[in-house]
Amino acid sequence: MKLRVRVLDLDAEKYVAVLNERTAKRIGEGPDGRVEIVKDGKKVVAILNTAKRSVKEDEVGVLLDVAEVLNLKDGDVVEVFPEEPPRSIEAIRKKIFGEKLSKEEIEAIIGDVVEGALFPAEASAFIVAAQINGLDEDETVYLTEAIANSGQRIDFDGVVVDKHSIGGVPGNRITFFFVPIMASLGFKVPKTSSRAITSPSGTADTMEVVARVDLSAEEIKEIVERVGGVIAWGGGANIASADDRLIQIRRPLRLDPLGMVLASVMAKKLAVSSKYVVLDLPVGPEAKLRSFSEARDWERRFKELGERLGIKVIGFVSNGIQPIGRGIGPALEMRDVLMTYTGEGSKDLLEKGVEITARLLSVLKKVPISRARKMAMDEVRSGRAEAKLREIIEAQGGDPEVRPEDIEVGRYQEEVISPADGKVSYISIQRIAAIARYAGAPVDKGAGIWMNVKIGDRVKRGDVLFTLFSSSKRKLKAALEVENPVRVQ
Amino acid sequence: MKLRVRVLDLDAEKYVAVLNERTAKRIGEGPDGRVEIVKDGKKVVAILNTAKRSVKEDEVGVLLDVAEVLNLKDGDVVEVFPEEPPRSIEAIRKKIFGEKLSKEEIEAIIGDVVEGALFPAEASAFIVAAQINGLDEDETVYLTEAIANSGQRIDFDGVVVDKHSIGGVPGNRITFFFVPIMASLGFKVPKTSSRAITSPSGTADTMEVVARVDLSAEEIKEIVERVGGVIAWGGGANIASADDRLIQIRRPLRLDPLGMVLASVMAKKLAVSSKYVVLDLPVGPEAKLRSFSEARDWERRFKELGERLGIKVIGFVSNGIQPIGRGIGPALEMRDVLMTYTGEGSKDLLEKGVEITARLLSVLKKVPISRARKMAMDEVRSGRAEAKLREIIEAQGGDPEVRPEDIEVGRYQEEVISPADGKVSYISIQRIAAIARYAGAPVDKGAGIWMNVKIGDRVKRGDVLFTLFSSSKRKLKAALEVENPVRVQ
Repeated sequence: MKLRVRVLDLDAEKYVAVLNERTAKRIGEGPDGRVEIVKDGKKVVAILNTAKRSVKEDEVGVLLDVAEVLNLKDGDVVEVFPEEPPRSIEAIRKKIFGEKLSKEEIEAIIGDVVEGALFPAEASAFIVAAQINGLDEDETVYLTEAIANSGQRIDFDGVVVDKHSIGGVPGNRITFFFVPIMASLGFKVPKTSSRAITSPSGTADTMEVVARVDLSAEEIKEIVERVGGVIAWGGGANIASADDRLIQIRRPLRLDPLGMVLASVMAKKLAVSSKYVVLDLPVGPEAKLRSFSEARDWERRFKELGERLGIKVIGFVSNGIQPIGRGIGPALEMRDVLMTYTGEGSKDLLEKGVEITARLLSVLKKVPISRARKMAMDEVRSGRAEAKLREIIEAQGGDPEVRPEDIEVGRYQEEVISPADGKVSYISIQRIAAIARYAGAPVDKGAGIWMNVKIGDRVKRGDVLFTLFSSSKRKLKAALEVENPVRVQ
Repeated sequence: MKLRVRVLDLDAEKYVAVLNERTAKRIGEGPDGRVEIVKDGKKVVAILNTAKRSVKEDEVGVLLDVAEVLNLKDGDVVEVFPEEPPRSIEAIRKKIFGEKLSKEEIEAIIGDVVEGALFPAEASAFIVAAQINGLDEDETVYLTEAIANSGQRIDFDGVVVDKHSIGGVPGNRITFFFVPIMASLGFKVPKTSSRAITSPSGTADTMEVVARVDLSAEEIKEIVERVGGVIAWGGGANIASADDRLIQIRRPLRLDPLGMVLASVMAKKLAVSSKYVVLDLPVGPEAKLRSFSEARDWERRFKELGERLGIKVIGFVSNGIQPIGRGIGPALEMRDVLMTYTGEGSKDLLEKGVEITARLLSVLKKVPISRARKMAMDEVRSGRAEAKLREIIEAQGGDPEVRPEDIEVGRYQEEVISPADGKVSYISIQRIAAIARYAGAPVDKGAGIWMNVKIGDRVKRGDVLFTLFSSSKRKLKAALEVENPVRVQ
């Protein structure tokens, strides 16, 4: 159908065309259908929006991006056709009807997800079908490779190592020990991390307090080759690009199909050619993993997938009953890390950082765990690990001399005190996370919590349990309304 | 967050707000997320689109509909918040995880589908979960009632009867016999029909050739009370409104969860308080129902659901191997119906129309089927049924004197002839439908096919098998490229 162009002064994250609803009916597409717009042999597939009045029956409204690609101006005549859905729809239907998908079918789905050729309703159907009908081992391997291939891949000389934590424990910033220690020992550690989705801070948010994290794949390669390690934001580097889209699609319904979670983690390791991955599996009543058997199950699935991909996975089941370290929220966590390196810090954070590194070292160096633990701790005690962290900070554009007290924290502060004498018997990590989020973390970098107590500590009535920080008085107040996460009895 | 309004000269079928992608990130919502826009205590929940440049960081772009509801003009300051997803998301998750839904949960989902509070990705997740995990008898009853209650409901005095055909057979216009015969016998027949989705014509498209079909619920009630019957378009009357939305969501992935198909049909019957429904179940190698056991299975499911809703369902397994009547396409079907009433018509169309009516009459009047068949045929032979059809046409704003030859058909015509002497051994109803669609039906009312042969007919080489009609030379040519659906051997 030939229609006159009206360029709409609006851009969007996708190609959009607007037709009068009568015109849409005539070409047989409804809202959220697909239309192909053709001008001088060039074409664009756009999502259809319908309008009752702002676009006339002989018009097609196009957003700026469409106008640019096709070089359109007001009054141009274009041909508009209904567009067939992409072929990956058939693969999604197969998964819905319980069939196994081939490598090519999974590649088609991921390709169409990345290009935006699949609409949200269709991509979401794939996630739901994967959640209910599952992805088997083969499908998970294909999915991992397809996600890894959806962005740039980086190769390194030398032994490439990596870590991953199954989330859910606030303050768990062991990456800031793992990466410098391993890099200092001569390994390559191209660590890409996520930003917080539902937590008060992701590793990338914390690193961003002192350095740039939106590094390109080229920068990651260059820095790792030169310094040994990097702590970057995965989403900025076009590494495993499909993963961000898939996470976005999983979010509204909070779906975590097991195969997809595995693929999401391992694709990022595969894309930077990691050969060894140590996996932190914190278990606790409010952590993601609620039992040891659940943790062992995840460990087994990761190991199996790793084997198929040529990646050795080492599991480390850890304690997830309370926050690690004292800082929670980007700035407070970074402050905690720096303090811990200078000796005034959090014993548990240092110990866990050393332990997870030792688990991997023991395998790599073929030494007993006690010897590996000593090697890792030596790197910290000697100052070499801290020096390496500062090198990395500098390489990512930060100030290598940064001191804990240089890090700005929320101007508004409030101490939460113990209502009684007694012993700390429980700390709700979900409430801790909620309080830090209400206070403004992670967007407000200085917002969060400084913990003064750990489970088992004896406290007196009036002792400070934790201090709350925020840049907003209103948010501080909102955060204080959450029930006290620290139980004293 | 406080933002300045920019009204965008664009309307859409849903509320849309556009934020700069940085602003969107700051409030923590991505594209297709939800935002609440508040002005002077009034609020609207809108779908978020993000823009890189056309909307500035301190602005919110609103489409015309949002601007009107909140009475906004350029430069106004509004508050924009991220909006929590609706609670029905939890019900959808339950269905994904294989749990049974309660009446309240299904009502919540349908309510949010109708209001547009559920986004396509979320609504589609419900359909996929229903497809894979199924809907049990209780859930199907709740769904039917929720769909029926999503629009207006109409009550009548007297015995309300209805029919439904499981689709797939071209030309199957038995409604034009069922409704007049039953109305003429004193029953109330508030028949609402769909338009064609994938077929060359729906009952509503055919009726529209001679009368208005977009009747309001009030008009349907008034006409049925006065004349006894109506042949209206269901989508125009705000009856079972949720159904249209659900069909739209099912379409891209072509999903037909059994419980949802049952609910879709029965909700429309429930909404007009039908007490008896006769169900046409055509079986054929290219029909929707491919075997008698499949037909019996559907019949059983419809009967069970009907029992729970207080609706008596009578099944009629019919022959679906070839088109019914001779006309295919809106105008040609209407012409066929009128010709059949005046005696020059299609014997099979008349017989099937009478038979399905007799199946119901036999139950209603508690008489043997032979007696019921005679009662129905008497209404036709006496001219009373035709008079009633013309009364209905007049009540719906048409010309009661309309003659078959008054109905305009496609100006371009082409006869398709038999390539050999022999017997018609097969007619592909899917190819017949495709040809009529290519010729322009149902949008081009005069486009379609006039069949000259039935299976078993003897033909000579050069005899006309069927005639093709279209208002477009180009479309006629495209239609002629489909392989001949009539096999002669």
